[in-house]
Amino acid sequence: MPYFDAASSLPLHPVARQALLASVDEGWADPSRPHREGRRARMLLDAARETAAEAVGCRPDELRFTSSGTQALHTGITGALAGRRRAGRRLVVSAVEHSAVLHTAEVHERAGGLTRQVEVDRTGRVDAQEWARALGEDCALACLQSANHEVGTVQPVEEVAAVCAEAGVPLLVDAAQSLPWGPVAGDWSLLAGSAHKWGGPAGVGLLAVRKGVRFAPQGPVDERESGAAPGFENIPAIVAAAAALRAVRAEADAEAARLRALVDRIRARVPELVPDTEVVGDPVRRLPHLVTFSCLYVDGEALLHALDAAGYSVSSGSSCTSSTLTPSHVLRAMGVLSEGNVRVSLPPGTPESEVDRFLDALPGAVEGVRAHLGAGAGTAAGPAPSGAASEITVDARGKLCPLPVIELAKVIEDVPAGGVVRVLADDEAARLDIPAWCEMTGHAYEGAEGIEYRVRRVAAGA
Amino acid sequence: MPYFDAASSLPLHPVARQALLASVDEGWADPSRPHREGRRARMLLDAARETAAEAVGCRPDELRFTSSGTQALHTGITGALAGRRRAGRRLVVSAVEHSAVLHTAEVHERAGGLTRQVEVDRTGRVDAQEWARALGEDCALACLQSANHEVGTVQPVEEVAAVCAEAGVPLLVDAAQSLPWGPVAGDWSLLAGSAHKWGGPAGVGLLAVRKGVRFAPQGPVDERESGAAPGFENIPAIVAAAAALRAVRAEADAEAARLRALVDRIRARVPELVPDTEVVGDPVRRLPHLVTFSCLYVDGEALLHALDAAGYSVSSGSSCTSSTLTPSHVLRAMGVLSEGNVRVSLPPGTPESEVDRFLDALPGAVEGVRAHLGAGAGTAAGPAPSGAASEITVDARGKLCPLPVIELAKVIEDVPAGGVVRVLADDEAARLDIPAWCEMTGHAYEGAEGIEYRVRRVAAGA
Repeated sequence: MPYFDAASSLPLHPVARQALLASVDEGWADPSRPHREGRRARMLLDAARETAAEAVGCRPDELRFTSSGTQALHTGITGALAGRRRAGRRLVVSAVEHSAVLHTAEVHERAGGLTRQVEVDRTGRVDAQEWARALGEDCALACLQSANHEVGTVQPVEEVAAVCAEAGVPLLVDAAQSLPWGPVAGDWSLLAGSAHKWGGPAGVGLLAVRKGVRFAPQGPVDERESGAAPGFENIPAIVAAAAALRAVRAEADAEAARLRALVDRIRARVPELVPDTEVVGDPVRRLPHLVTFSCLYVDGEALLHALDAAGYSVSSGSSCTSSTLTPSHVLRAMGVLSEGNVRVSLPPGTPESEVDRFLDALPGAVEGVRAHLGAGAGTAAGPAPSGAASEITVDARGKLCPLPVIELAKVIEDVPAGGVVRVLADDEAARLDIPAWCEMTGHAYEGAEGIEYRVRRVAAGA
Repeated sequence: MPYFDAASSLPLHPVARQALLASVDEGWADPSRPHREGRRARMLLDAARETAAEAVGCRPDELRFTSSGTQALHTGITGALAGRRRAGRRLVVSAVEHSAVLHTAEVHERAGGLTRQVEVDRTGRVDAQEWARALGEDCALACLQSANHEVGTVQPVEEVAAVCAEAGVPLLVDAAQSLPWGPVAGDWSLLAGSAHKWGGPAGVGLLAVRKGVRFAPQGPVDERESGAAPGFENIPAIVAAAAALRAVRAEADAEAARLRALVDRIRARVPELVPDTEVVGDPVRRLPHLVTFSCLYVDGEALLHALDAAGYSVSSGSSCTSSTLTPSHVLRAMGVLSEGNVRVSLPPGTPESEVDRFLDALPGAVEGVRAHLGAGAGTAAGPAPSGAASEITVDARGKLCPLPVIELAKVIEDVPAGGVVRVLADDEAARLDIPAWCEMTGHAYEGAEGIEYRVRRVAAGA
């Protein structure tokens, strides 16, 4: 059964499984104890630290293990902000960082700090020059992902690190998505990763802090892992995580090339196979194994279920798939369609045939959801009847994504070219999806006032 | 090779090992995803929560898994303090809580909160009436261990819970040491535990928060485990932890009775076998498997190494075994001897013969250390020479525990009965060990001024 949600979590790598089994009877004692069981645990921990540090590209004494990637980000950001408090209280992040970063930034703001979000382009990428302008004199820390977890776009970390270095600002890189594929280039100061993203066990993150970076871990004092990870280390899991990272790195280049070709196939074929679909993210500067697209007139949750029923496990950034009923902040920051959103992330070893079968199954799954919503291929077809009103209002209040866009599409050709459809929609996804629909269909988005959106019909070919 | 440091960490219980292996291929996906791998992980997590909740004695929806017992304490205390902020900012704890609690209290104080420490008696136990007096009108939270991790003394949790309930103050119980032996009785509000203390894997803690208790998790927002544990759940480890807890509980009563008898033997035999030794902690109201004693004129670190060389892994609260060179805060709060301190905590299944062999090995190990320090059986022997000075000063500045006490013992009979020895000692352990030495040897401790301690010789039998 094909699992295409590698960016969320991977099964344990066979090497990790072996390492876990081998160390579970050796690594259970407290590594800070001087007795032989403690010394044995300490040796395993030290060896794992050496292995992981080599893969990260830092010194072993610069690397701390944490209880998760999220914990590494929390600790890294708050520790670096506290260590640089005298420099100022500005935190610069990209608008498409992982929620763990953005939530930590919220805490910083609630405590009186300042956060500046650097916007991204339509591919989800930041611009190093814009980053440089965001820094300012009072900047304590900048934080940028190596690659985006939802759309796969690779960030210009090396250039951003250079402008940060010039401004004397440490850069924390969230490398959770890219670490399995290789070390992060550039002069970063802190780096965070998460083992279950590379086939290690859950419950292990890592935080590298370069020597010389001012760093003051917050929270209650704890002696373990230089204060970065309160609580007793899960050494067998750490050993397994380090072993898995080394193992995936050995296969990374060949596997990246292979998966990149499969993702290229998905990127090319999906718009051909499924009408009204937008593939998002940078087509070239991207993770090898990840592709995201959105389908007009589709309920993301229903599509996820249809694909699950067909045997495919994928993810989605559509609002209906989130507990808060808001579209993914990444898609929002990119200004791309969020409805009917699907993220496909291929685990290492995914055979070509599975990708082909997925491409065979996808059109039917989308069509089924569209048909169920009354938004089939006929949506938005037919010329405007003669004598049509030049302005129509559609009341889609109380209707959730993708219904407001479906209603809009149904009536757009009821107005003559140049005519206007006003859509009343209180679903938050409409703010993203109505402009994105206009972009995709060539109609003119004229803006919103409150919950009223204005769309002007543009004649085909105009 | 006998491992007698169960209170620090236990090897994986065979049932935990089995559960880990069985779930490692099923529980790696994100339990918040709707796809089949996610649903499978969610089912494992839910089942583990039911099992653990039953053992704890709470509802499954009251129980959160955390990344460690320490993390459970941090989150539990800060969340309960924040939830009760309107009630006041006083935190009441015992003086012998785990350092994770005391360090969290320090953070609370740095943020403007107030901490009241309730003192303990010489056995390490708090008094419920004294606890009631410490609460006061502005008390947000009280925090008491179920049993002490260093000396094994069981606290009167039921009585303390009753006085807290009467005052309307929630009680958080740190049950890390007692949870393997049974649920915590009494009307507690929050409870924390740690899996590697009961034969589960490291990296799993638990925090129970009773319905109706005001609780506001601090730190960055995170949806997992009701906000109590940021980051991705290590589900195979959680499954193993829950399975181990159920398994050890099934054997707990029989094993407790068996180990209690072995500990009773140690408690009785050590003072007979090793002169100048004090067994500490409550002799009856105690954990079944744990006993702590201190040996005069012994360097704790050297004794640990001697026992390790003889094949016994134990722990110590002596200052020389801590990174800060201060004696254990537990022994300090109890006012008992800290030098030559040894904690023996027997894992389930420890055979009687191992305990007997330990009792055979101990006298030689202590004697070896004493001989090395020049403090053999002859210390403090012989009558005062006639015409001895009635006051002697011993300069032990710069000398670390146990040397100041050894110096004192060497000269005490150089003064006549009623005479005084003044000891100059700047080692922090002296503050605890000189009075404790007086208590044990029957001489009169007359107090300290700065680093000068006054001891008056009392004639034997006086």
